[in-house]
Amino acid sequence: MTEWWVNSAERIGADLYLELSGPGGRRAALTRALREAVRSGRLAPGTRLPPYRSLAADLGVARNTVADAYAELVAEGWLTARQGSGTRVADRADHRADHRADTLRRAVRTPAKALLRARAPRHDLRQGRPDASAFPRAAWSACYRRALQAAPSEAFGPGDPAGRRELREALAEYLARARGVRAEPDRIVVCSGFAHALRLLFGQGAGGVLRGPLGLEAYGLGFHRGLLGTAGVRTVPLPLDEHGARVDLLGRERAVLLTPAHQFPTGGPLHPERRAAVIDWARARGAVVLEDDYDGEFRYDRKPVGALQGLDPERVIHLGSVSKSLSPALRLGWMVLPERYVEPVLAAKGEREGWASVPDQLALAEFIVSGSYDRHVRRMRQRYRRRRDRLVAALAEHAPHVEVTGIAAGLHAVLRLPPGTEQSALKAAAWQGVAVDGLAAFRHPEAETTAGDGLVVGYAAAAEHAYGAALEALCAVLPPG
Amino acid sequence: MTEWWVNSAERIGADLYLELSGPGGRRAALTRALREAVRSGRLAPGTRLPPYRSLAADLGVARNTVADAYAELVAEGWLTARQGSGTRVADRADHRADHRADTLRRAVRTPAKALLRARAPRHDLRQGRPDASAFPRAAWSACYRRALQAAPSEAFGPGDPAGRRELREALAEYLARARGVRAEPDRIVVCSGFAHALRLLFGQGAGGVLRGPLGLEAYGLGFHRGLLGTAGVRTVPLPLDEHGARVDLLGRERAVLLTPAHQFPTGGPLHPERRAAVIDWARARGAVVLEDDYDGEFRYDRKPVGALQGLDPERVIHLGSVSKSLSPALRLGWMVLPERYVEPVLAAKGEREGWASVPDQLALAEFIVSGSYDRHVRRMRQRYRRRRDRLVAALAEHAPHVEVTGIAAGLHAVLRLPPGTEQSALKAAAWQGVAVDGLAAFRHPEAETTAGDGLVVGYAAAAEHAYGAALEALCAVLPPG
Repeated sequence: MTEWWVNSAERIGADLYLELSGPGGRRAALTRALREAVRSGRLAPGTRLPPYRSLAADLGVARNTVADAYAELVAEGWLTARQGSGTRVADRADHRADHRADTLRRAVRTPAKALLRARAPRHDLRQGRPDASAFPRAAWSACYRRALQAAPSEAFGPGDPAGRRELREALAEYLARARGVRAEPDRIVVCSGFAHALRLLFGQGAGGVLRGPLGLEAYGLGFHRGLLGTAGVRTVPLPLDEHGARVDLLGRERAVLLTPAHQFPTGGPLHPERRAAVIDWARARGAVVLEDDYDGEFRYDRKPVGALQGLDPERVIHLGSVSKSLSPALRLGWMVLPERYVEPVLAAKGEREGWASVPDQLALAEFIVSGSYDRHVRRMRQRYRRRRDRLVAALAEHAPHVEVTGIAAGLHAVLRLPPGTEQSALKAAAWQGVAVDGLAAFRHPEAETTAGDGLVVGYAAAAEHAYGAALEALCAVLPPG
Repeated sequence: MTEWWVNSAERIGADLYLELSGPGGRRAALTRALREAVRSGRLAPGTRLPPYRSLAADLGVARNTVADAYAELVAEGWLTARQGSGTRVADRADHRADHRADTLRRAVRTPAKALLRARAPRHDLRQGRPDASAFPRAAWSACYRRALQAAPSEAFGPGDPAGRRELREALAEYLARARGVRAEPDRIVVCSGFAHALRLLFGQGAGGVLRGPLGLEAYGLGFHRGLLGTAGVRTVPLPLDEHGARVDLLGRERAVLLTPAHQFPTGGPLHPERRAAVIDWARARGAVVLEDDYDGEFRYDRKPVGALQGLDPERVIHLGSVSKSLSPALRLGWMVLPERYVEPVLAAKGEREGWASVPDQLALAEFIVSGSYDRHVRRMRQRYRRRRDRLVAALAEHAPHVEVTGIAAGLHAVLRLPPGTEQSALKAAAWQGVAVDGLAAFRHPEAETTAGDGLVVGYAAAAEHAYGAALEALCAVLPPG
């Protein structure tokens, strides 16, 4: 068996891998190899084949050998030859059919789940999603290009698990300015987002930086609880009242995870006394507070409350990401760590950056330093504030019995429903193609209290033009007053 | 307040962000801004500042304004000016002290490990690294921009854990053409690289897609063994001989991990009969073969051997990444899976893409489809081939008793050393600033055989201009013949 590697890329824009083997000489072998390449889909319909002379030179065969092989395959219908556009793979529907019959069990079947994943809802009011249509493509691409031009060569080698220094410096400055975080670049570790941070902190087995039991707000993301459960961390739900999480009930937990700026999902801020109290508890117990600052930049009625971390950088791990402010598609987040956790977290991350894209890190640094991040956040703050106002106005008009609770902040609001109506509202919503979550889905299974019936309405997810229709559809599925 | 973004990157190797504000005119503002940049560490000791004229042009101020500001800061000891080397940030211990006094408990202390990480070796002959200086910045940035422009809005929302369809289609076509992989887009799952793939496949606890015991080549990356150990997977070393891994010794293992195209690190291909035999074993036992195709694109003496996966796509998981072909900084890899593993792997990955940057995925799709990937691989193939030839020539001249083994392929070669000399060669190398690995470091701790003494020389890592000196330094540390 002879294998040929055809370097005809400049001519056909592609390398072509052919095995010339079997009986009948080179022409027959080449014909077979090309036919097989087309039949199997390795050469896609429309692909332009190399000119005779190039392929002949690459394969070390006579030009006629190639010409004959092409001609035979054109005759068979695998290839087409047209004046001026060279020889191409034919666009024949039955190639695929032929391929299918051949491969039987290997048939391409798009699994139902994948289809489900791909289908966008008619009316998107899912929480936790920024308006994807507002991603600042041009500004981001420009920052990306500038950052790559300016980067030293070593930026394209294995990455520092702490993250690029350019980004950590930009974040330290930004977080101090915008969120009151007391950050130093050397206390920051870049990661792929909040979930990655949780995984690094609680690890698996003995490798974890932190251990449970971990206090959690009684309402939160089931995804986070599941992740902690997989890591073997016991979680203890803290009841919520009008002042936020009952941190006064913390006892022997070793850590607590809070959303102090804007409780997720119920929507209140942690009361200043509770902020102080949880720091006191952490100091007294040698425990640590995890601050999930998932939407801290978005407050509409006043200046955002500063980060809890500012109260005691040695007792609080501050966690943030660009997932709400910019896009969850970038997979960039950060931890601002008490000094004693820096090396253990880096050790958990490994010797090299295994996760966060370094070019994207450099682009984010440039995006922040150039002021584009501030501009984008400001723009989105205005947009989301208007959306929240429209939500409140629509409800006041069409469903005055439904109360919007929580502060004017973030990317979602909670609609309080009459007792016992949440499930039927969700069913009605599903029927009408309104993607929205019920409050019950966020409840810790061991929580002793309940926040009642409600819908968690994400008002950021829809594109601007689609938001009005989504609001109308929402009002139509709410229980009557 | 006026903010100035100083694009003097080509001149000082770094962009400089200055805020000119406050009382006293531009000279005073510039002096303050520069002082603050040095004091805070944003301008690191030793950094070269832009020439007067450049900074003046960038800031739109008179040249004398810059000259005066520099002079004042030189007088204060923040900067140093030396004939011929321009103006630089002074290496003054008390900058740091000053900064410390300011920030008290938040003092910046670069941990020793971080310093170690950051320091580049004088002569870089480390394996597993492509030439970072050859990253195609312009072509990649252009693809990134085009891909972002063309992307639908939903690309900036939460990502499909399978990876972007654009990328999976591009990979399916490329892998079929270039590596003989029988891939369909729906069988491909995008990930952050090989280690991420291993983590997804072997998971932790009950969540794993595959289970051990896992057969491994007796020589390989300790990092992979460690990762599998953490996941609780028992690994069984397979001895290596001149035909590659002794797959005939496989018995009750449930899976085997191989580097069939180019054994890492010893450098041979898996013999065709062994390729067939391992597939037979997997079929007979219901086991699966993991094909680590880490450098399959780089073969210099002939066409690359096609992927093992082509022999039986239902028995082989084909794993690849851009880490060797393009850059490990991108964190993009892929798995081509037997159909039965697709859904379990997606379930292990989670409901949304939590890892691989979606913009980078789109950029890679465009990079492949536009032919840039082929062009880059071809260019690097030529470069690395020349490097290997130079290594062989240098050894023939300066150390003819040292044999280079393994096929002409990949990014590394193995230098066989006389018995008992590996450790002393490594010490000499460290002493001379030559970063290179010894063969023993790759040996499975339970391996019953040894591949003898040797050095694993990565000839790709160094920049083009630095390679000659690295070779010279290497020859100087080899044991005498």
